[in-house]
Amino acid sequence: MKSTPEALYAGIKSGDNTALSEGITLIESYLPEHRALANELVQKCLPLSGNSIRIGITGVPGVGKSTFIEHFGGLFSVDDGKVAVLAVDPSSAVSRGSILGDKTRMNDLAVNSNVFIRPSPAGNTLGGVARKTRESIILCEAAGYTTILVETVGVGQSEVMVKSMVDFFLLLMLSGAGDELQGIKKGIMEMADALVITKADGDNIKKASVAAREYKNALHLFPPNPNNWIPSVFTCSALSGKNMEEALKTIRSFENHVKVNGHFEKNRREQDKRWLSETLKELILSGFFANAELLEKLKLNEQRVIDGGISSFQAAEELYEAYQHGRNI
Amino acid sequence: MKSTPEALYAGIKSGDNTALSEGITLIESYLPEHRALANELVQKCLPLSGNSIRIGITGVPGVGKSTFIEHFGGLFSVDDGKVAVLAVDPSSAVSRGSILGDKTRMNDLAVNSNVFIRPSPAGNTLGGVARKTRESIILCEAAGYTTILVETVGVGQSEVMVKSMVDFFLLLMLSGAGDELQGIKKGIMEMADALVITKADGDNIKKASVAAREYKNALHLFPPNPNNWIPSVFTCSALSGKNMEEALKTIRSFENHVKVNGHFEKNRREQDKRWLSETLKELILSGFFANAELLEKLKLNEQRVIDGGISSFQAAEELYEAYQHGRNI
Repeated sequence: MKSTPEALYAGIKSGDNTALSEGITLIESYLPEHRALANELVQKCLPLSGNSIRIGITGVPGVGKSTFIEHFGGLFSVDDGKVAVLAVDPSSAVSRGSILGDKTRMNDLAVNSNVFIRPSPAGNTLGGVARKTRESIILCEAAGYTTILVETVGVGQSEVMVKSMVDFFLLLMLSGAGDELQGIKKGIMEMADALVITKADGDNIKKASVAAREYKNALHLFPPNPNNWIPSVFTCSALSGKNMEEALKTIRSFENHVKVNGHFEKNRREQDKRWLSETLKELILSGFFANAELLEKLKLNEQRVIDGGISSFQAAEELYEAYQHGRNI
Repeated sequence: MKSTPEALYAGIKSGDNTALSEGITLIESYLPEHRALANELVQKCLPLSGNSIRIGITGVPGVGKSTFIEHFGGLFSVDDGKVAVLAVDPSSAVSRGSILGDKTRMNDLAVNSNVFIRPSPAGNTLGGVARKTRESIILCEAAGYTTILVETVGVGQSEVMVKSMVDFFLLLMLSGAGDELQGIKKGIMEMADALVITKADGDNIKKASVAAREYKNALHLFPPNPNNWIPSVFTCSALSGKNMEEALKTIRSFENHVKVNGHFEKNRREQDKRWLSETLKELILSGFFANAELLEKLKLNEQRVIDGGISSFQAAEELYEAYQHGRNI
């Protein structure tokens, strides 16, 4: 690392994107000696953070996330100052950044000086990726970005993670329920504050409208959100620009709704508490789950449970004893 | 405890309901000296367990769970041998058994010699109640009960717990979406293998049918279950007896479906592994969360996070250090 946390902080505070990039690189580093520096930097930036709307955007591959963000992010950067686009992709632990890795997919945004784009950090664990993303949000906010878009793929756990770090969760969907839906895991749809049917252009317009109406009807059957926001459902086309403004208006209307009813702050406080609790649990559990010998015993006991030789609870108690006393089981 | 685990086991094995009751009382006991005896009993019964269909039944208060179970359980006991009805109600930690506490609500079932009814165990934690219920299932199966009905209230976490210990999950709902839905938490509906609109009698028949159709339409928009079972939706009336047979047929058809595609066994194995893992994690975490001093520090750090003085991650790390070294933070 060339720069000290102090220097990075000064740069970030003054809105220097090079310092911001370098700061995020520090956060993403696996070198143990970088961790303390990263903590120091996050700690410094923390008082400047929070003044933004954090928007999660998800959808299965092929739904058109990049194209949507390209247009959508552009709208924000015209009206509302600076936009940061971050990506979360747990699968990139292997591929090192499969989404947003190619900035050329977002030509206009990438050259917009009000927009900061950061590809997905590689991480060994979902928890690791989560932390890096959360801390990157803090740095971006400290750098004056007032809209944070967090992109992720619609394939499961990463949505739950992103949902727990954003104010607004937007789900992009293809029209034509059926095969395309397979990629979306159960529970994701219920987390959405807006459900947007993409590619509503050309021959697809009618199909998209039908899908939107069906989802609208379906959603009212489902339990209300704790924020009392009725999820918006509409079609859009990044190609024709149709309803892209609608998406922006929806966010603004949501922001007003949850700021008035107090849920905006309440949600952020709950998220903070949850992250504290989750991180703490992860640290405590690592005492067991980072121990190869205990993991071996866990595997053995799993097999014993499956073979019906021992109950799940008995097996857990034996493992816990081994963990506590370092004894053999 | 009057009887030894050996004596209880012999009684349970021979189908003696008094021994079964006494065995479950042993499992539910809070006396530390009973735990080892209970473990021994469960361990003995384990090889005889598993040969049953485990059915979870949930719905908000007022949906008619007891009446449904009264009729439904009766059907099973005619065709398919012995039925055990267990209840899970985490709220009863205080009230000591608010559901199924009053056996008189199930007059016919209560006097049916093929039916065993057991009120909700009181427990301090959801985990404790879960364990007691899981172990009670093992005892009931060892006693020859081939249908296990696990009743719970439709108010949140207890469903997730029950879902993870049953083969089939049935959600009872009232017609007239709206206010009645408020009690059902998000995600519960997506867990259901069957969605049954109750009280479809008298003036209510049409409303119930409309509701059933709406849910049917809505469900096809949602992602498929891992067991490839399309959730059944129908109306029923415990009063007129309408479709009660349908419910039984649905279960039989489901059983056939998941036994053929292998999901029945797969699901049970996954449940066993999950219970092992959950119990183990609970035990490990209790080292922190049962420590009053550390909990006090956790509260303090939560406040510091909310006040923006420290990041969630930093707060978690400090707590972990305190936990590890017994140092002050």
